[in-house]
Amino acid sequence: MSSSDRVIIFDTTLRDGEQSPGASMTKEEKLRIAKALERMRVDVIEAGFAIASPGDFDAVKSIADTIQDSTICSLARALDADIERAAEALAGANSGRIHTFIATSPIHMQHKLRMQPDQVVEQAVRAIKKARNLCADVEFSCEDAGRSEIDFLCRIVEAAIDAGARTINIPDTVGYAIPHEYANLISELINRVPNADKAIFSVHCHNDLGLAVANSLAAVVAGARQVECTINGLGERAGNAALEEIVMAIKTRQDLLGVHTNIDTPHILSVSRMVSGITGFPVQPNKAIVGANAFAHESGIHQDGVLKHRETYEIMAAEDVGWHANKMVMGKHSGRSAFRSRLLELGIELASETELNAAFARFKDLADKKHEIFDEDLQALVSETLSEETPEMYKLVSLEVASKTGEVPHAHLVLSIDGKEVAADEQGSGPVDAAFKAIEKVAQSGATLQLYSVNAITQGTDSQGEVTVRLERGGRIVNGNGADTDIVIASAKAYLNALNLMQASTAKAHPQVDGV
Amino acid sequence: MSSSDRVIIFDTTLRDGEQSPGASMTKEEKLRIAKALERMRVDVIEAGFAIASPGDFDAVKSIADTIQDSTICSLARALDADIERAAEALAGANSGRIHTFIATSPIHMQHKLRMQPDQVVEQAVRAIKKARNLCADVEFSCEDAGRSEIDFLCRIVEAAIDAGARTINIPDTVGYAIPHEYANLISELINRVPNADKAIFSVHCHNDLGLAVANSLAAVVAGARQVECTINGLGERAGNAALEEIVMAIKTRQDLLGVHTNIDTPHILSVSRMVSGITGFPVQPNKAIVGANAFAHESGIHQDGVLKHRETYEIMAAEDVGWHANKMVMGKHSGRSAFRSRLLELGIELASETELNAAFARFKDLADKKHEIFDEDLQALVSETLSEETPEMYKLVSLEVASKTGEVPHAHLVLSIDGKEVAADEQGSGPVDAAFKAIEKVAQSGATLQLYSVNAITQGTDSQGEVTVRLERGGRIVNGNGADTDIVIASAKAYLNALNLMQASTAKAHPQVDGV
Repeated sequence: MSSSDRVIIFDTTLRDGEQSPGASMTKEEKLRIAKALERMRVDVIEAGFAIASPGDFDAVKSIADTIQDSTICSLARALDADIERAAEALAGANSGRIHTFIATSPIHMQHKLRMQPDQVVEQAVRAIKKARNLCADVEFSCEDAGRSEIDFLCRIVEAAIDAGARTINIPDTVGYAIPHEYANLISELINRVPNADKAIFSVHCHNDLGLAVANSLAAVVAGARQVECTINGLGERAGNAALEEIVMAIKTRQDLLGVHTNIDTPHILSVSRMVSGITGFPVQPNKAIVGANAFAHESGIHQDGVLKHRETYEIMAAEDVGWHANKMVMGKHSGRSAFRSRLLELGIELASETELNAAFARFKDLADKKHEIFDEDLQALVSETLSEETPEMYKLVSLEVASKTGEVPHAHLVLSIDGKEVAADEQGSGPVDAAFKAIEKVAQSGATLQLYSVNAITQGTDSQGEVTVRLERGGRIVNGNGADTDIVIASAKAYLNALNLMQASTAKAHPQVDGV
Repeated sequence: MSSSDRVIIFDTTLRDGEQSPGASMTKEEKLRIAKALERMRVDVIEAGFAIASPGDFDAVKSIADTIQDSTICSLARALDADIERAAEALAGANSGRIHTFIATSPIHMQHKLRMQPDQVVEQAVRAIKKARNLCADVEFSCEDAGRSEIDFLCRIVEAAIDAGARTINIPDTVGYAIPHEYANLISELINRVPNADKAIFSVHCHNDLGLAVANSLAAVVAGARQVECTINGLGERAGNAALEEIVMAIKTRQDLLGVHTNIDTPHILSVSRMVSGITGFPVQPNKAIVGANAFAHESGIHQDGVLKHRETYEIMAAEDVGWHANKMVMGKHSGRSAFRSRLLELGIELASETELNAAFARFKDLADKKHEIFDEDLQALVSETLSEETPEMYKLVSLEVASKTGEVPHAHLVLSIDGKEVAADEQGSGPVDAAFKAIEKVAQSGATLQLYSVNAITQGTDSQGEVTVRLERGGRIVNGNGADTDIVIASAKAYLNALNLMQASTAKAHPQVDGV
């Protein structure tokens, strides 16, 4: 198959995905995901929006400095300052890309930009030229292309290619398109823009009507050769096109679509779980490809006689996306080197011996409480070890709770706040409520609890509970995570993790980028 | 708009949705969902597969006897016994439909049916004629149509229409189709089958590649006028086309699609929550239409200046699908009649005064522990009240747990088993583990825990936790639910609910129906 039959997979989990309320990630978490994406052979990783905040800049820079095989991209509005900051963050990249954008729909030009169409073209061209002076690989996006006028789109795309943009992205920013309509838009652009053969056309679809994957595939049939997508379809509102669905549809229906990707598909499931664990966004059981039931016809829970022939109900092999992969079970007798090599196989590379030692110590503690340690336990344990790198103002020293049917539950808690121990007693409507109230009695954070969820990490009653606590204060949202075999202790850890995140100076202000 | 521009919404949550491993529902739960579907003005409700088990028969019959406005449908293989049983279950329906099917793809005919194509046509025709003798409204499905040969499909569809089938369903049984390919199949059938104008063409898509909704809409553009779908996309493997996405895409893009449905869309969110609560299948936050973040751009958590104009980023109004609906908050001073009328507004009609009294007593207990009672609390409370109608072999008398950092958690439990009180003490890796081990010490069920999840029902730390416990024994899976402000007690209730469900004689054997 020729290279023009290859669809470039552009992952924006770390940029557009992170813009979901509650999905913000630390630099370390982003780096961990970026390494997993590289290992899965994602072509382009959009690592952030360098000018948005010092935190975003650091994340893009550290990913650009680390990743070797994937192209690293930073978003930038069509403004000099944005483009310079993006170039600065990407300076250390083996292969870097500046992705600049401007809105092209009448509604956005009029209400958001307050600019005339001529001014929009002029600003786009200036930005692309500026970017090309700093970086060989420049992508240009027409924000809200789905609601833009076709003549104007043709004009600005032609000008953008002339100015040096190698990739032209046509996003369906508001998730409004229907596949055949979107395919027509892409075909018309490719046919009408005279220099269209000098650029790769890209699509970026939102899932508000449940059509992001279908719109992306329709665009590929129409000639697009880059798809922007996220793991688990993470993203604002109903999210973006799900990488795993795009990749597996292209692979499964190569007969019809005639294209391929470079993705090493057996890594899909572990990356999905990593992103779900880090963001605290669960994957529903009936989610295609990565949901717990997606391949449930293989789980032995089917009636006799249904599967007289395996192919009767199966279009993909579960192994192709990482189900039933070698799940090495570890236990209390597993050593440090087995532990390290299993982490490497899971795509987790700890930065230092200190981190490895801290994670191994937690592993040994866990192995004392739990018979078998699964891959999912290791993922949770590493998440927790690394989340402690967040400057910890609040630490749990001890917690004691009692609950009895018919009586009011009570918690006795000792916290260390900036190194000083403080104790509190509180009652609550349940042991978790009592523990949270005791924490707030001393922390006085003023935050409100928006979401509380627990998922057992593996099967069996001695599984660890992984708790997500979402706190909100003054419009700012953080997700704290905690794992423990004791659900009440896991809950207290998650609450304290959220308070620490809120405390840490990771405040962000994403200026006007919701649209791409 | 003429009636031929109307797309018939055929909901199969209670039949194909229920076939997901772990999603089985009791007759009472199915009836509750059916009432909510009727209220939302679903055209056809597939209530079950009457011959599959006495439980399925009872569910279809009780829904057929109760629902007035929607057509009630039962599935039946192309066999006399199946069709007779379906007709019997539907006897009391105001408007009933028999839905019979047979596989038409070479792989299914050869490996599953072990029949020649001629025999398949003959059997289909005989079944349809038999059904028409018992019921005016007959639907015929070509199982695995997506992999069938087009000439054979044309032949069997023509014969089925001649035999009296009013609706011809062309399912993508294995979720393999791509929208433009599927649209071509539907167009070709409608164009080639000489008597195509005498039937309504229907589609039934599975979501294995994330394309169920897109395939259904592409088929509508090609002339299909019935879409089979489920609430939240529930269904085997990656599920079916999601009703809420189909309906809102048709409504939002009426400009392009030119069709409409009868659905009263502001009921969508409450029905979604009801199905999620009853099955224990969570909806992920980035799920289109009904996910917690689907309309999060409206939540006030956006940057200044982004929304200079509301339409800039909004294609649907959240109110249109039931977000921000009148959320009457109730409290300890709310009376019995306010409680009853709020339930009615939520689509919950309790069968008797006894049930209402039981639910109201629980409401008062809850109001003592929790300041504000939201609609979600009421849904949970009713679920719990009704789930007690399952014959209860095991009841929780009392539970006392203590946990303390650094010590092994301990539970002291008293159960009533068939009316006899038994006590047990156990230790565990956490308080929930200790409680489950104490239950198993006396119950000795031999079941294994497959899934454990907790979701806070509303915001705030005094929210109730709704726990789902999935147990498996000998290939049989049940989901138990329990809600309480104390998460450990909620967990014990959920575990006991699962044991009671397993005990109850609701065993099922769905014979070879995975395919439609």
